Amino acid sequence: MPSSEEMKAAMRSYVERLNAADLEGVLALFTDDATVEDPVGAGVHSGAEAVRAFYAMAIASGARLSIVGPQRGSTSDAAAMALDVLVAPPGAPTMKVGVIETMRFNEAGKIVEMRAYWGPEDMAPAD
Amino acid sequence: MPSSEEMKAAMRSYVERLNAADLEGVLALFTDDATVEDPVGAGVHSGAEAVRAFYAMAIASGARLSIVGPQRGSTSDAAAMALDVLVAPPGAPTMKVGVIETMRFNEAGKIVEMRAYWGPEDMAPAD
Repeated sequence: MPSSEEMKAAMRSYVERLNAADLEGVLALFTDDATVEDPVGAGVHSGAEAVRAFYAMAIASGARLSIVGPQRGSTSDAAAMALDVLVAPPGAPTMKVGVIETMRFNEAGKIVEMRAYWGPEDMAPAD
Repeated sequence: MPSSEEMKAAMRSYVERLNAADLEGVLALFTDDATVEDPVGAGVHSGAEAVRAFYAMAIASGARLSIVGPQRGSTSDAAAMALDVLVAPPGAPTMKVGVIETMRFNEAGKIVEMRAYWGPEDMAPAD
Protein backbone atom coordinates (compact mmCIF):
# COMPACT_ATOMS: atom_id res chain seq x y z
CA MET A 1 0.00 0.00 0.00
CA PRO A 2 1.34 3.47 -0.78
CA SER A 3 2.13 5.73 2.17
CA SER A 4 0.06 8.85 2.78
CA GLU A 5 3.06 10.86 1.58
CA GLU A 6 3.18 8.88 -1.68
CA MET A 7 -0.55 9.38 -2.22
CA LYS A 8 -0.26 13.11 -1.53
CA ALA A 9 2.68 13.36 -3.96
CA ALA A 10 0.65 11.58 -6.65
CA MET A 11 -2.15 14.09 -6.11
CA ARG A 12 0.29 16.98 -6.50
CA SER A 13 1.58 15.39 -9.75
CA TYR A 14 -2.02 15.17 -10.92
CA VAL A 15 -2.43 18.92 -10.38
CA GLU A 16 0.89 19.80 -12.03
CA ARG A 17 0.28 17.61 -15.08
CA LEU A 18 -3.27 18.86 -15.58
CA ASN A 19 -2.03 22.45 -15.38
CA ALA A 20 0.66 21.61 -17.96
CA ALA A 21 -2.04 20.19 -20.28
CA ASP A 22 -0.09 16.90 -20.15
CA LEU A 23 -2.92 14.47 -20.89
CA GLU A 24 -0.70 11.40 -21.18
CA GLY A 25 1.02 12.33 -17.92
CA VAL A 26 -2.30 12.66 -16.14
CA LEU A 27 -3.58 9.33 -17.49
CA ALA A 28 -0.34 7.58 -16.46
CA LEU A 29 -1.33 8.26 -12.83
CA PHE A 30 -4.50 6.15 -13.19
CA THR A 31 -5.10 2.41 -13.47
CA ASP A 32 -6.76 1.13 -16.63
CA ASP A 33 -9.96 0.38 -14.74
CA ALA A 34 -10.07 3.64 -12.78
CA THR A 35 -13.28 5.55 -12.13
CA VAL A 36 -13.71 9.34 -12.08
CA GLU A 37 -16.80 11.11 -10.69
CA ASP A 38 -16.56 14.89 -11.10
CA PRO A 39 -18.73 16.28 -9.65
CA VAL A 40 -20.05 13.56 -7.35
CA GLY A 41 -23.54 12.77 -8.61
CA ALA A 42 -22.94 13.61 -12.26
CA GLY A 43 -22.16 10.06 -13.37
CA VAL A 44 -19.07 7.89 -13.16
CA HIS A 45 -16.48 7.84 -15.97
CA SER A 46 -15.28 4.24 -15.84
CA GLY A 47 -12.22 2.77 -17.54
CA ALA A 48 -9.32 4.12 -19.58
CA GLU A 49 -11.30 5.38 -22.57
CA ALA A 50 -13.88 7.26 -20.51
CA VAL A 51 -11.24 8.71 -18.18
CA ARG A 52 -9.19 9.86 -21.20
CA ALA A 53 -12.22 11.59 -22.70
CA PHE A 54 -12.99 13.31 -19.41
CA TYR A 55 -9.48 14.71 -18.92
CA ALA A 56 -9.15 15.69 -22.58
CA MET A 57 -12.27 17.78 -22.03
CA ALA A 58 -10.92 19.20 -18.76
CA ILE A 59 -7.72 20.28 -20.48
CA ALA A 60 -9.65 21.74 -23.43
CA SER A 61 -11.68 23.82 -20.95
CA GLY A 62 -8.45 25.42 -19.77
CA ALA A 63 -8.80 24.12 -16.22
CA ARG A 64 -6.17 25.50 -13.81
CA LEU A 65 -5.98 23.80 -10.43
CA SER A 66 -4.45 25.02 -7.19
CA ILE A 67 -4.38 23.06 -3.97
CA VAL A 68 -5.88 24.99 -1.04
CA GLY A 69 -4.60 24.14 2.43
CA PRO A 70 -2.94 20.92 3.53
CA GLN A 71 -3.62 17.60 1.86
CA ARG A 72 -4.96 14.83 4.10
CA GLY A 73 -4.10 11.13 4.17
CA SER A 74 -5.66 8.13 5.88
CA THR A 75 -4.60 4.90 7.50
CA SER A 76 -5.29 2.96 4.31
CA ASP A 77 -5.41 3.53 0.56
CA ALA A 78 -7.05 6.95 0.29
CA ALA A 79 -6.28 10.65 0.56
CA ALA A 80 -8.04 13.98 0.08
CA MET A 81 -7.38 17.61 -0.81
CA ALA A 82 -9.19 20.90 -1.33
CA LEU A 83 -8.70 22.79 -4.60
CA ASP A 84 -9.65 25.95 -6.39
CA VAL A 85 -10.21 25.27 -10.06
CA LEU A 86 -10.27 28.07 -12.62
CA VAL A 87 -12.16 27.11 -15.76
CA ALA A 88 -11.96 29.31 -18.83
CA PRO A 89 -13.88 27.87 -21.75
CA PRO A 90 -13.12 29.69 -25.04
CA GLY A 91 -15.25 32.82 -25.33
CA ALA A 92 -16.82 32.47 -21.87
CA PRO A 93 -15.97 34.26 -18.63
CA THR A 94 -13.55 32.56 -16.25
CA MET A 95 -15.22 30.74 -13.36
CA LYS A 96 -13.73 29.57 -10.09
CA VAL A 97 -14.95 26.25 -8.71
CA GLY A 98 -14.22 25.23 -5.12
CA VAL A 99 -13.66 21.48 -4.91
CA ILE A 100 -12.75 18.78 -2.40
CA GLU A 101 -11.32 15.68 -4.07
CA THR A 102 -10.84 12.21 -2.64
CA MET A 103 -8.71 9.57 -4.33
CA ARG A 104 -8.19 5.87 -3.74
CA PHE A 105 -4.99 4.10 -4.80
CA ASN A 106 -3.84 0.58 -5.63
CA GLU A 107 -0.77 -1.20 -4.25
CA ALA A 108 1.43 0.41 -6.90
CA GLY A 109 0.26 3.90 -6.00
CA LYS A 110 -1.91 4.39 -9.09
CA ILE A 111 -5.27 6.12 -8.78
CA VAL A 112 -8.22 3.70 -8.91
CA GLU A 113 -10.93 6.19 -7.96
CA MET A 114 -11.29 9.97 -8.02
CA ARG A 115 -14.34 11.76 -6.61
CA ALA A 116 -14.73 15.55 -6.79
CA TYR A 117 -17.18 17.17 -4.37
CA TRP A 118 -18.64 20.39 -5.74
CA GLY A 119 -22.03 21.67 -6.74
CA PRO A 120 -23.32 24.60 -8.78
CA GLU A 121 -23.32 26.75 -5.63
CA ASP A 122 -19.55 26.18 -5.27
CA MET A 123 -18.94 27.92 -8.63
CA ALA A 124 -18.64 31.68 -9.01
CA PRO A 125 -17.19 34.18 -11.49
CA ALA A 126 -13.43 34.43 -10.89
CA ASP A 127 -12.20 37.70 -9.41
CA MET B 1 -32.76 14.59 -1.85
CA PRO B 2 -31.43 17.34 0.43
CA SER B 3 -29.93 20.38 -1.28
CA SER B 4 -26.22 21.09 -0.98
CA GLU B 5 -27.11 23.94 1.37
CA GLU B 6 -29.12 21.58 3.59
CA MET B 7 -26.24 19.08 3.66
CA LYS B 8 -23.74 21.82 4.51
CA ALA B 9 -26.02 23.08 7.29
CA ALA B 10 -26.27 19.55 8.73
CA MET B 11 -22.47 19.35 8.73
CA ARG B 12 -22.26 22.65 10.60
CA SER B 13 -24.80 21.34 13.15
CA TYR B 14 -22.63 18.26 13.55
CA VAL B 15 -19.63 20.46 14.42
CA GLU B 16 -21.62 22.67 16.79
CA ARG B 17 -23.23 19.75 18.63
CA LEU B 18 -19.95 17.85 18.99
CA ASN B 19 -18.30 20.98 20.38
CA ALA B 20 -21.18 21.35 22.84
CA ALA B 21 -20.65 17.71 23.96
CA ASP B 22 -24.29 17.13 22.92
CA LEU B 23 -24.12 13.39 22.20
CA GLU B 24 -27.87 12.95 21.64
CA GLY B 25 -27.88 15.96 19.33
CA VAL B 26 -25.02 14.53 17.27
CA LEU B 27 -26.67 11.10 17.02
CA ALA B 28 -29.98 12.68 15.95
CA LEU B 29 -28.21 13.79 12.74
CA PHE B 30 -27.52 10.17 11.75
CA THR B 31 -29.75 7.37 10.47
CA ASP B 32 -30.01 4.21 12.59
CA ASP B 33 -27.97 2.27 10.05
CA ALA B 34 -25.31 4.92 9.49
CA THR B 35 -21.61 4.11 9.11
CA VAL B 36 -18.68 6.14 10.43
CA GLU B 37 -15.06 5.61 9.34
CA ASP B 38 -12.66 7.93 11.21
CA PRO B 39 -9.94 7.80 10.05
CA VAL B 40 -10.52 6.12 6.70
CA GLY B 41 -8.83 2.73 6.97
CA ALA B 42 -9.27 2.26 10.71
CA GLY B 43 -12.46 0.20 10.51
CA VAL B 44 -16.11 1.12 10.00
CA HIS B 45 -18.42 1.80 12.95
CA SER B 46 -21.74 0.50 11.65
CA GLY B 47 -25.19 1.08 13.14
CA ALA B 48 -26.62 3.14 15.98
CA GLU B 49 -24.85 1.39 18.85
CA ALA B 50 -21.39 1.53 17.27
CA VAL B 51 -21.86 5.13 16.15
CA ARG B 52 -22.99 6.11 19.66
CA ALA B 53 -19.92 4.47 21.21
CA PHE B 54 -17.64 6.26 18.74
CA TYR B 55 -19.04 9.74 19.40
CA ALA B 56 -19.20 9.16 23.17
CA MET B 57 -15.47 8.48 22.95
CA ALA B 58 -14.88 11.53 20.74
CA ILE B 59 -16.67 13.77 23.25
CA ALA B 60 -14.77 12.16 26.15
CA SER B 61 -11.50 12.98 24.37
CA GLY B 62 -12.46 16.66 24.45
CA ALA B 63 -12.53 16.99 20.65
CA ARG B 64 -13.01 20.57 19.43
CA LEU B 65 -13.76 20.95 15.72
CA SER B 66 -13.45 24.01 13.51
CA ILE B 67 -14.34 24.09 9.84
CA VAL B 68 -11.46 25.33 7.66
CA GLY B 69 -12.37 27.03 4.41
CA PRO B 70 -15.60 26.64 2.44
CA GLN B 71 -17.69 23.50 2.59
CA ARG B 72 -18.34 21.74 -0.73
CA GLY B 73 -21.47 20.11 -2.08
CA SER B 74 -22.18 17.85 -5.01
CA THR B 75 -24.90 17.24 -7.56
CA SER B 76 -26.30 14.36 -5.52
CA ASP B 77 -26.44 13.19 -1.90
CA ALA B 78 -22.95 14.03 -0.62
CA ALA B 79 -20.89 16.93 0.67
CA ALA B 80 -17.41 17.55 2.09
CA MET B 81 -15.51 19.89 4.38
CA ALA B 82 -12.03 20.43 5.83
CA LEU B 83 -11.60 20.66 9.59
CA ASP B 84 -9.03 21.26 12.27
CA VAL B 85 -9.72 19.06 15.27
CA LEU B 86 -8.16 19.75 18.66
CA VAL B 87 -8.02 16.65 20.83
CA ALA B 88 -7.13 16.96 24.51
CA PRO B 89 -7.29 13.62 26.30
CA PRO B 90 -7.09 14.00 30.10
CA GLY B 91 -3.48 14.32 31.20
CA ALA B 92 -2.05 14.34 27.67
CA PRO B 93 -0.87 17.26 25.54
CA THR B 94 -3.37 18.81 23.12
CA MET B 95 -2.96 17.65 19.54
CA LYS B 96 -4.27 19.22 16.35
CA VAL B 97 -5.50 16.88 13.63
CA GLY B 98 -6.12 18.14 10.10
CA VAL B 99 -9.08 16.31 8.57
CA ILE B 100 -11.19 16.27 5.41
CA GLU B 101 -14.63 14.72 5.98
CA THR B 102 -17.13 13.50 3.42
CA MET B 103 -20.74 12.70 4.30
CA ARG B 104 -23.58 11.04 2.43
CA PHE B 105 -27.22 11.78 3.26
CA ASN B 106 -30.62 10.12 2.85
CA GLU B 107 -33.75 11.70 1.41
CA ALA B 108 -34.64 13.20 4.81
CA GLY B 109 -31.23 14.86 5.13
CA LYS B 110 -29.89 12.46 7.77
CA ILE B 111 -26.27 11.30 7.60
CA VAL B 112 -25.92 7.72 6.31
CA GLU B 113 -22.12 7.73 5.95
CA MET B 114 -19.26 9.76 7.38
CA ARG B 115 -15.66 9.27 6.29
CA ALA B 116 -12.77 11.24 7.83
CA TYR B 117 -9.53 11.46 5.85
CA TRP B 118 -6.49 11.88 8.09
CA GLY B 119 -3.40 9.92 8.92
CA PRO B 120 -0.80 10.04 11.69
CA GLU B 121 1.21 12.55 9.64
CA ASP B 122 -1.75 14.96 9.72
CA MET B 123 -1.54 15.15 13.53
CA ALA B 124 0.80 17.50 15.39
CA PRO B 125 1.11 19.09 18.82
CA ALA B 126 -1.25 22.08 19.00
CA ASP B 127 0.41 25.50 19.10
